[in-house]
Amino acid sequence: MNGKNIVASEYIDGNEANLKAVNPATGLLLDGAFYRAGDNEVNAALAAATAAFQTYRNINKDAKAAFLNAIADEITGIGEELIARASAESGLPLPRLQGELGRTTGQLRLFANLVAEGSWVDAIIDTALPERQPLPRPDIRRMLVPIGPVVVFGASNFPLAFSVAGGDTASALASGCPVIVKAHPAHYGTSALVSSAIVKAVIKTGMPKGVFSLLYDDGYKIGAKLVQHPLTRAVTFTGSYHGGMALVKLAQERQQPIPVFAEMGSINPVIFLPAAVEKQAEELAKKYAASITLGAGQFCTNPGLMLAIASPELEKFKQTLIEAISIVPSATMLTEGIAKNYSKLSSEVAAEAGVKILAVSGLKNQELQNQSEAKIAQVPAVEFIKNPKLHEEIFGPYSLLVVAEDIQELEQVIAVLQGQLTVTIMADKNETGQYQSLIHQLTDKTGRIILNGVPTGVEVCAAMQHGGPFPATNDSRFTSVGSTAIYRFVRPLAYQDWEQVLLPDELKDANPLGIFRMVNNQFTK
Amino acid sequence: MNGKNIVASEYIDGNEANLKAVNPATGLLLDGAFYRAGDNEVNAALAAATAAFQTYRNINKDAKAAFLNAIADEITGIGEELIARASAESGLPLPRLQGELGRTTGQLRLFANLVAEGSWVDAIIDTALPERQPLPRPDIRRMLVPIGPVVVFGASNFPLAFSVAGGDTASALASGCPVIVKAHPAHYGTSALVSSAIVKAVIKTGMPKGVFSLLYDDGYKIGAKLVQHPLTRAVTFTGSYHGGMALVKLAQERQQPIPVFAEMGSINPVIFLPAAVEKQAEELAKKYAASITLGAGQFCTNPGLMLAIASPELEKFKQTLIEAISIVPSATMLTEGIAKNYSKLSSEVAAEAGVKILAVSGLKNQELQNQSEAKIAQVPAVEFIKNPKLHEEIFGPYSLLVVAEDIQELEQVIAVLQGQLTVTIMADKNETGQYQSLIHQLTDKTGRIILNGVPTGVEVCAAMQHGGPFPATNDSRFTSVGSTAIYRFVRPLAYQDWEQVLLPDELKDANPLGIFRMVNNQFTK
Repeated sequence: MNGKNIVASEYIDGNEANLKAVNPATGLLLDGAFYRAGDNEVNAALAAATAAFQTYRNINKDAKAAFLNAIADEITGIGEELIARASAESGLPLPRLQGELGRTTGQLRLFANLVAEGSWVDAIIDTALPERQPLPRPDIRRMLVPIGPVVVFGASNFPLAFSVAGGDTASALASGCPVIVKAHPAHYGTSALVSSAIVKAVIKTGMPKGVFSLLYDDGYKIGAKLVQHPLTRAVTFTGSYHGGMALVKLAQERQQPIPVFAEMGSINPVIFLPAAVEKQAEELAKKYAASITLGAGQFCTNPGLMLAIASPELEKFKQTLIEAISIVPSATMLTEGIAKNYSKLSSEVAAEAGVKILAVSGLKNQELQNQSEAKIAQVPAVEFIKNPKLHEEIFGPYSLLVVAEDIQELEQVIAVLQGQLTVTIMADKNETGQYQSLIHQLTDKTGRIILNGVPTGVEVCAAMQHGGPFPATNDSRFTSVGSTAIYRFVRPLAYQDWEQVLLPDELKDANPLGIFRMVNNQFTK
Repeated sequence: MNGKNIVASEYIDGNEANLKAVNPATGLLLDGAFYRAGDNEVNAALAAATAAFQTYRNINKDAKAAFLNAIADEITGIGEELIARASAESGLPLPRLQGELGRTTGQLRLFANLVAEGSWVDAIIDTALPERQPLPRPDIRRMLVPIGPVVVFGASNFPLAFSVAGGDTASALASGCPVIVKAHPAHYGTSALVSSAIVKAVIKTGMPKGVFSLLYDDGYKIGAKLVQHPLTRAVTFTGSYHGGMALVKLAQERQQPIPVFAEMGSINPVIFLPAAVEKQAEELAKKYAASITLGAGQFCTNPGLMLAIASPELEKFKQTLIEAISIVPSATMLTEGIAKNYSKLSSEVAAEAGVKILAVSGLKNQELQNQSEAKIAQVPAVEFIKNPKLHEEIFGPYSLLVVAEDIQELEQVIAVLQGQLTVTIMADKNETGQYQSLIHQLTDKTGRIILNGVPTGVEVCAAMQHGGPFPATNDSRFTSVGSTAIYRFVRPLAYQDWEQVLLPDELKDANPLGIFRMVNNQFTK
């Protein structure tokens, strides 16, 4: 495994290879040594990306699609080694990573298809009206164009799907922007393997080499420098609120501010409506015990908050939930830091006014390190409403049940909720009709609203929205999952009275690419 | 004329009506007294807007279109009084304001049509795949939804088209967002007249009254409070760099940051290619003398920078330009502050290294105040490149000719240019082909690129992009002119496994609104 930094698709000699990957389950070091990047690598990566951008932005759409597909092929080609390494570095089980690998290559192919089809550039053409009175109308044609080098921060909780060749990289490359990845320190080896696949794809498909770089660091220095570099044009991040906002602040303080797309997680409230609880108490409890503890609760969309109205059936729901949570086996958390933080926050919460711990999993594996214990707590609505600390995410297999006395109190709870990635309603048949005002109120708080499902599981498709009002993300107008994620890295450019021969193919009269366009206010192809 | 603040479409009694409008041409006070808004009005306007949003966001699309058309009708109904007042307050001539009035009502009707057609919400539907392996796909449907109350700052240079019922207000109301306007202190009376038309339209079409408020202030206090108010969801501004960035900073410092759309102007470079100068020297000079001095140069797209390569024909171009500029009659500038600033900056520039004043208009009207003198200066490329002060906008009828020795030096000039609203290329027939790399370099610097035209004149249409890379605007991904300006005020919302009856009409299977949608990756209607 080559642990050197990659600048413009080439491995760069460095001074010291003193970064090591750790197996969180054992605490032992894994093989491979990784080079800490420095200022030289940051500068070289951005300079190469900027130079490559001049070619890559105008590359033929089929060539760009072939590049994305080649990355998927090369990643698939790594085989078992990749899944094994990702599991050793993240503590995540092999089947989960197998699924995540499919998602990762699927995302790359989804963006390849989007780019090959070509209509995503939103071409709009208003042709000249030379005879218009009092003034003629010029010919104006606009399309979306890429903005330039994008810095992608690998996320800890998806070592494949939100890391080196994850959704951020795939969508940025699809848009026509070069990418510089800051590898996540929790999975250096996985990053090295995946980046080798991208390097191969760059070479095989003849892309300008500056379209991809990857840098290692175990602290914040290189990440900060990447965000501050004057040639960087956008930044993507998935992680904690504090990490995300630190990057947002750095980007705003630049001489030329740039957009940061920070997905900072949320508590993903689930509202259990009364008839649903009445009729399906046990079924709901089992379904939610599974969702809360899936992947040791380390999903951005983990249901960290359950809202319900007090009732005899709710007691039955609670009882079933307690039983289910009590027998959830512990799981290895992603990193020692995440495990310690989970342990601390999920313990401290018990000291908050009105909070009662309902259940803690009794099945902790004592032979492994960084083991998560599933936990469920309860608090009366009145206490939740006045305690903002209870509104914050506890990253791990934890959820808080807020019990309201009646529907009015439930609405008061909803009123104080912050922005969320998801909101879920659990309702009995025809029950939603009675609660329309409540549902309406909830749509203001979220990017995705789910009926009778679980928030975990974020489908990668055109209609997905993974991004909600602040602080779930810093910019709710964009998504980090699904094909519209490409719109984070583009801006409109209008050509006025331009010559046909000089126009991009997307805007030529003859529509040689055969894409959907809006021409004089009509959609045509 | 009623000079009271308007909160939720009602005139509010205030303590003191001590704000007066001034005629910049005479320095005399105009009739009418306007009430300074205070904290109470700010709080009441935002509370009313937030309450109204809950109704207005879901209002029938035809009703919303009727409201926008009613505003246009009511404005038209004011008649001559509006144009006369706008002219007295702005110093702009009547024919220009007559044209601007047409543009203003045209914008409102354009958004009414967009809303009535309905496809702008970008509906995307991915239907469920219950049999998919290894996991079923849920049903996911997304569309764009409005974000909430928008604060609109009236602009000084378009008292109608970028003020109370201008493009920002029209696009925000079209999106489903309530609007609170901060009236520009340079045209209180125009603001009062136009806002009375909006109030009438609100009542006639039965809109929730909180959709519109208008506040007066002659300083920065009320504007700052509006941006800082926790219920504000977005801000629009057209004006100076310093004004725009002050608002951006306030918005970023909020507990919940919100987007600001600040159009901060630019110097709109015009590149005169050699053959164009050779063959059309005199014609180009006359065309540009007119564009530079149009409306006393007080357009965001005024051509403040001309780039050319030294040649004998360029001397002829200069000579004609000098003659044309020398006989441009002075015009009243919008405000005393703008006139003084123009006078100061256009005088100071003469002291910069290498700068030579080529021409100053000799026709200054001594009987009127705040008169603009058209001015043209010249500087060698080598001096321009090292002096950032010369890259800044001088708002008024001024332009700087930068003379390069050759094409390489011209490219060096382009390399140091900041982001621009527009870039214009003046080329002879077939000449563009030789300069493709230069043209390519220029597209990175601008939101709109024009061939053989003038940048002044911003067509209101679907394909228009009025927004360029920083510092022309703070966010080049959006436009403030044209129908896509509506996308500043919306975010995507996804419904997962939602009941048909509860879905918005835009997302129902039957497509009752008959709009264009992307269904399972196919555009359909």
